[in-house]
Amino acid sequence: MLQFELLKTDDAQGDYAGSHARRGRLTLNHGVVETPIFMPVGTYGTVKGVLPRSLEEMGAQIILGNTFHLWMRPGQDVMASFGGLHQFEKWSRPILTDSGGFQVWSLGEMRRITEEGVHFASPVNGDKLFMSPEVSMQIQTLLNSDIAMQLDECTPYETKGHITTEREARQSMEMSLRWATRSRDEFQRLQNPNALFGIVQGGMFENLREESLEQLVAMDFPGYAIGGVSVGEPKDEMLRIMAHTPHKLPAHKPRYLMGVGTPEDLVEGVAQGVDMFDCVMPTRNARNGTLFTRFGDLKIRNARHKTDHQPLDPSCTCHACAGASGVAWADGGRDGFSRAYQHHLDRCGEMLGPMLASIHNLHYYLNLMREVREALDGGRFGEFVRQFKADRARGV
Amino acid sequence: MLQFELLKTDDAQGDYAGSHARRGRLTLNHGVVETPIFMPVGTYGTVKGVLPRSLEEMGAQIILGNTFHLWMRPGQDVMASFGGLHQFEKWSRPILTDSGGFQVWSLGEMRRITEEGVHFASPVNGDKLFMSPEVSMQIQTLLNSDIAMQLDECTPYETKGHITTEREARQSMEMSLRWATRSRDEFQRLQNPNALFGIVQGGMFENLREESLEQLVAMDFPGYAIGGVSVGEPKDEMLRIMAHTPHKLPAHKPRYLMGVGTPEDLVEGVAQGVDMFDCVMPTRNARNGTLFTRFGDLKIRNARHKTDHQPLDPSCTCHACAGASGVAWADGGRDGFSRAYQHHLDRCGEMLGPMLASIHNLHYYLNLMREVREALDGGRFGEFVRQFKADRARGV
Repeated sequence: MLQFELLKTDDAQGDYAGSHARRGRLTLNHGVVETPIFMPVGTYGTVKGVLPRSLEEMGAQIILGNTFHLWMRPGQDVMASFGGLHQFEKWSRPILTDSGGFQVWSLGEMRRITEEGVHFASPVNGDKLFMSPEVSMQIQTLLNSDIAMQLDECTPYETKGHITTEREARQSMEMSLRWATRSRDEFQRLQNPNALFGIVQGGMFENLREESLEQLVAMDFPGYAIGGVSVGEPKDEMLRIMAHTPHKLPAHKPRYLMGVGTPEDLVEGVAQGVDMFDCVMPTRNARNGTLFTRFGDLKIRNARHKTDHQPLDPSCTCHACAGASGVAWADGGRDGFSRAYQHHLDRCGEMLGPMLASIHNLHYYLNLMREVREALDGGRFGEFVRQFKADRARGV
Repeated sequence: MLQFELLKTDDAQGDYAGSHARRGRLTLNHGVVETPIFMPVGTYGTVKGVLPRSLEEMGAQIILGNTFHLWMRPGQDVMASFGGLHQFEKWSRPILTDSGGFQVWSLGEMRRITEEGVHFASPVNGDKLFMSPEVSMQIQTLLNSDIAMQLDECTPYETKGHITTEREARQSMEMSLRWATRSRDEFQRLQNPNALFGIVQGGMFENLREESLEQLVAMDFPGYAIGGVSVGEPKDEMLRIMAHTPHKLPAHKPRYLMGVGTPEDLVEGVAQGVDMFDCVMPTRNARNGTLFTRFGDLKIRNARHKTDHQPLDPSCTCHACAGASGVAWADGGRDGFSRAYQHHLDRCGEMLGPMLASIHNLHYYLNLMREVREALDGGRFGEFVRQFKADRARGV
């Protein structure tokens, strides 16, 4: 089941002329999700480096799981014995699973894509395996994710230096459409009680994106994703597609921009009418010591943090910055962990370093979306965007 | 400051004839510690893999810091700017620091020990450094640990196949006594407001242990440690020293057995009159996938756990085993993480694996000591020891 309530649109407020930003509420089998939302990525049934309860505390409403990875490990038998992913990973709120298409595609030489599906060798044990729209639906049904994604072919931006042509992008997009039909048919046949999203493809070609979108809309999916962005294309190409596609999707259905992106990308995506985002950036960057803050990005490895008693972000209320009290440094709280301490943890290779950094970065993303929602609720999204950009440009 | 109140002794109960077990209460500058107690090891200012708040939740009353490591990184300037270790690592309860002697000694070829102290090359940057009783006291004063340890020379059990002779052990022990005097003098000169422990040495020789003990007792330290065990000697040698020394120490002062050991070692140590233990085993084994449970040790990597829905220990109330509710599986709780899930995390190399395992193992050690204290309070320590051994032998 999926219900989407469109609560407010920014253009009605007039504060940020030209914005397609919207405030919505998504009701799924495992709970309610306020949009716009960022969804932390839990590839192997764990958002890397954080306890589920930390995710709950920082207000994560929905997280991702990766169908391909969970198929490889722990495998369908184990997932089935738990009745799906929720019980296995101890997450009671909604879950979205991708189709596994992107991961199979990423295998490169290890896979062969045909109309029927994708033949590939298991990266875990070399077994010959086959992924198809039907297989993807079967696994996602078993995972019992609140939102399943159709199997699609992720159209590459370039392949070994060759930039994908319109003809190639069309062939790929058209196969994704046929796979959309097969995904939907199998999803229905399995009587999956959750919701299936279609995925708009078409590479960097607006006309193809439009064709893909129109045909998917005709199939009446309960929600739509925009795929094939953030796959190695230049930033301006990504922004061009972000500006083109989202607001053309049906207004009364949720819109999900896959795999995007930086804080700036998210705010821009919201302005373009996107409701849902996912990205590995907050957790991956955390493990590399790159922290997102209101006032720009911070590299904890940098020697200038060695003696700094401030937290990562003085305005932040996450457990890393504000500790048990949750009172931000800027509001007088002194329970958080200092930059000096986190610099030290990083130098010593201590696990607590990436643990605190992951909590902080995920909290930053979730809080950014919370501020976006509040701005939309308050009819001051334009003001918010201006302040956001000024703050981020200020520097830490 | 240090106050030690001896609340109860097992021999007075008569339930476990011959036991020297005692129940005590230690009051330190940062709080009260109920003994017998296990102290988690936080070498570099972090107990590996756990948030300070997790330590608090599992009832850790006092943790360790390593003077040598913290001297190397982050260094004295940073520690001084935080006014000590508590504020740096955000731990408000008591801290004990070792003297750095064991770590300097472990440098092997990299150091030269003289009467004056130890010359060594920094393992971080190669700088030529010097550690002495005075330097150790200066650093520990700066760290502001509730309990500081005298600098001692850790008498090896063997060196390159040569088992330490009585003559060598005597020379080493006598130097440690001279360093005890120098440590005490410097500690007083610095007006350190905390407590300094002397360390009994003497290798595997009871007569030397006795001499060391007598001279340290004459110096009237507020507490005593037994060092130079768990340094590579056979188990029966360790048990021989554990049976010899602890109960000979002054009854009205706390007794600390350094670097020991397995759950069985701890229970045996308590029976021999030890009040305080520390060991890296719970956290180190956690990172290697070896879990301690009431019913024996468990290797999470073992394929038989692949589909097991049970938690690591059905009787355990830690966050890994009992989740947010804290209700053990055996009592009907189903909020904990399964063995299957933790097996999966281990196979995938996910950080959450060692995070959950560290929480569990530390909780196991802390809870074991809590059960020991309750048994002593209830006058049924003998019964407890018999049940403990039967349970551990049962197997998981």
